[in-house]
Amino acid sequence: MEQVVGVIGGGQLARMMIGSAIELGVGIRVLAETADSAAALGFHSVGDYQDLETVRHFASSVDVVTFDHEHVPQQILTILEAEGVLVRPGSQALRFAQDKLAMRERLTELGLPVPDWATVSTTAELGAFLARHDGRGVVKLPVGGYDGHGVRFVSDPSEVGDWLEPETISRFPQGLLVEEAVDFVRELSQLSARSPSGEFVAWPLAESWQDGGVCVEVVAPAPRAASRTITRAEQIARAVAEGVGVVGVLAVELFETADGRLLVNELAMRPHNTGHWTMDGSVTGQFEQHLRAVLDLPLGSTASTGAAAAMVNVLGGPEAARLPGARAAAMAADSAAKIHWYGKQYRPGRKVGHVNVVSNATVDAAVDARARARAVAGFLDAENVAD
Amino acid sequence: MEQVVGVIGGGQLARMMIGSAIELGVGIRVLAETADSAAALGFHSVGDYQDLETVRHFASSVDVVTFDHEHVPQQILTILEAEGVLVRPGSQALRFAQDKLAMRERLTELGLPVPDWATVSTTAELGAFLARHDGRGVVKLPVGGYDGHGVRFVSDPSEVGDWLEPETISRFPQGLLVEEAVDFVRELSQLSARSPSGEFVAWPLAESWQDGGVCVEVVAPAPRAASRTITRAEQIARAVAEGVGVVGVLAVELFETADGRLLVNELAMRPHNTGHWTMDGSVTGQFEQHLRAVLDLPLGSTASTGAAAAMVNVLGGPEAARLPGARAAAMAADSAAKIHWYGKQYRPGRKVGHVNVVSNATVDAAVDARARARAVAGFLDAENVAD
Repeated sequence: MEQVVGVIGGGQLARMMIGSAIELGVGIRVLAETADSAAALGFHSVGDYQDLETVRHFASSVDVVTFDHEHVPQQILTILEAEGVLVRPGSQALRFAQDKLAMRERLTELGLPVPDWATVSTTAELGAFLARHDGRGVVKLPVGGYDGHGVRFVSDPSEVGDWLEPETISRFPQGLLVEEAVDFVRELSQLSARSPSGEFVAWPLAESWQDGGVCVEVVAPAPRAASRTITRAEQIARAVAEGVGVVGVLAVELFETADGRLLVNELAMRPHNTGHWTMDGSVTGQFEQHLRAVLDLPLGSTASTGAAAAMVNVLGGPEAARLPGARAAAMAADSAAKIHWYGKQYRPGRKVGHVNVVSNATVDAAVDARARARAVAGFLDAENVAD
Repeated sequence: MEQVVGVIGGGQLARMMIGSAIELGVGIRVLAETADSAAALGFHSVGDYQDLETVRHFASSVDVVTFDHEHVPQQILTILEAEGVLVRPGSQALRFAQDKLAMRERLTELGLPVPDWATVSTTAELGAFLARHDGRGVVKLPVGGYDGHGVRFVSDPSEVGDWLEPETISRFPQGLLVEEAVDFVRELSQLSARSPSGEFVAWPLAESWQDGGVCVEVVAPAPRAASRTITRAEQIARAVAEGVGVVGVLAVELFETADGRLLVNELAMRPHNTGHWTMDGSVTGQFEQHLRAVLDLPLGSTASTGAAAAMVNVLGGPEAARLPGARAAAMAADSAAKIHWYGKQYRPGRKVGHVNVVSNATVDAAVDARARARAVAGFLDAENVAD
């Protein structure tokens, strides 16, 4: 009788939906890549999300299909939709999260602010683009990238010479995406959610920090954000959500420029690393909200639970670095820190958990939250516990 | 490599530990009564907790054994302990939650305030006790009661005539427990937790309301509590926890009298209905705290997340009363309400979920939280949705 959400992909995003599903009284099933996936916790089957029969069989066991990642092929999603499966977000929305080039085209059509961009298939085309942009640019593979993979900052076409070789470029008939290297002052993230009924809610704007393309820290609300920036970020998120027909959580990563403009960097149509702070920093966390949205239930309040929240990722190192006492030391260091652990094998650079801290400090709550979250994450970080 | 907590009993208390275990990166296994128990969600086996071999086999698959209820027989627990199993709370503490008579004796030894009490095995003994207490008393079966079952308010021995028949009284060699009917002004609940290392933390004192022995509403912090009452409640909880050697969450239910005294009514050595508000109203909820405690991890902050929190239970009625639209209507009524659902079949009077509301209203936050939680629960309550 209870409704069942099927999540394709068994990573930490699927894992973090499980607790929310239990509390909501909603069923959840996960199609995990392997038996030791982060979300392979008893609600899962194991299978290949690129295999139509596997996905079709999985979909037949649930009421609505959603995602831990955006890598399920369009041809599978469109077949399922034609067969009557509820896929949320739907293939027509998800394609903009799958294909950076389609996303740039669509955002440009919608009149939303994006970095200057072009498609290039040759050294000459790329050289011409760079020449128009102070000799710098960012080249992106249109599909398949994540956490900085498939993205390169270049000042000379030779730096993506391998991507322009026939064997790679032939995979991208429209060419590679090249964008101006935006001279931003900081990166912001606007998290929001939309339901099939059209209800839309936005969380407070957050600031994020990346290292090598990997999100490492987030603070919300974004410190010292001008009210017009806050308003504009929410307008952009709503325009994307409605313009593209998103259902579920939408993360819009933004560049803020020195002159106060916002440019859309990336989109994700699922819970997102820059939204992990909402698990403790908001009345409704992004994982609960995603479940509400894909089930077309009323959306939950995005009000903050404190003056500021910070999230610091914990990245893995050699397995040996995970000392038995690290978790206890981290908990003892700050009894109010919320440690979220993904149950994954340590590997260098892999996201294995995160720490949230909500601060009500009357002065500099954002600074307080970030410093505290960092201190706790320091106990858990492979580089630190290896000392 | 991860530690695994084994929970005996598959009710909602075990269910609500699961999300916390996932976030902490702790393994969890549940020994459920039936395949459709609330916590039978993929981390469970099904078996009889009164069967030594079943419990022994379950215990061998986990690192520490804890409980959803206090009904596992002492003889099983002491055998497991002798075999080296970590049982938390241990049998020597748990017996005071299992046996109301042993509890009264121990609290009296510890010098803690309790209602006047005696053991009675005959109509004459009970009559004498009542005569000394204005003709009123509360008779309790020493073991096996829950939610008001096994407890009767009496003004004449004939009202427990059935319990004084040989077939019942012979099960209780020390007799029945009789207590004075305390003329209390309200009921309070002091939730706390203690770890094997001896760390002790208390949450803010809460006020609770019962209906027919079943907890129906809780507000924290307890409105208009005198500071000496707050201090005294925490002192009592600490004295019980340390005096009895509790490990895990301890709920001490208290009567507050017109002259401001506190008397210990009941104890529970596990997460408790009067502590459900902590899931949203505290930095660390009672389910996470219980897991931390039984694993001897540092305990989490019990600070409040808002000015006041309220919890209202949702009780079941006929299955037909659960209208499909009830959950959506409840969510739409208050987007900041937190609905926790136990996935249980509706049965009249059965606890099937609860609603938490945290309020930061600057005036009467407790009143605001309670009214809002009630309103949302009203949509979910069988009696209401049946309209």
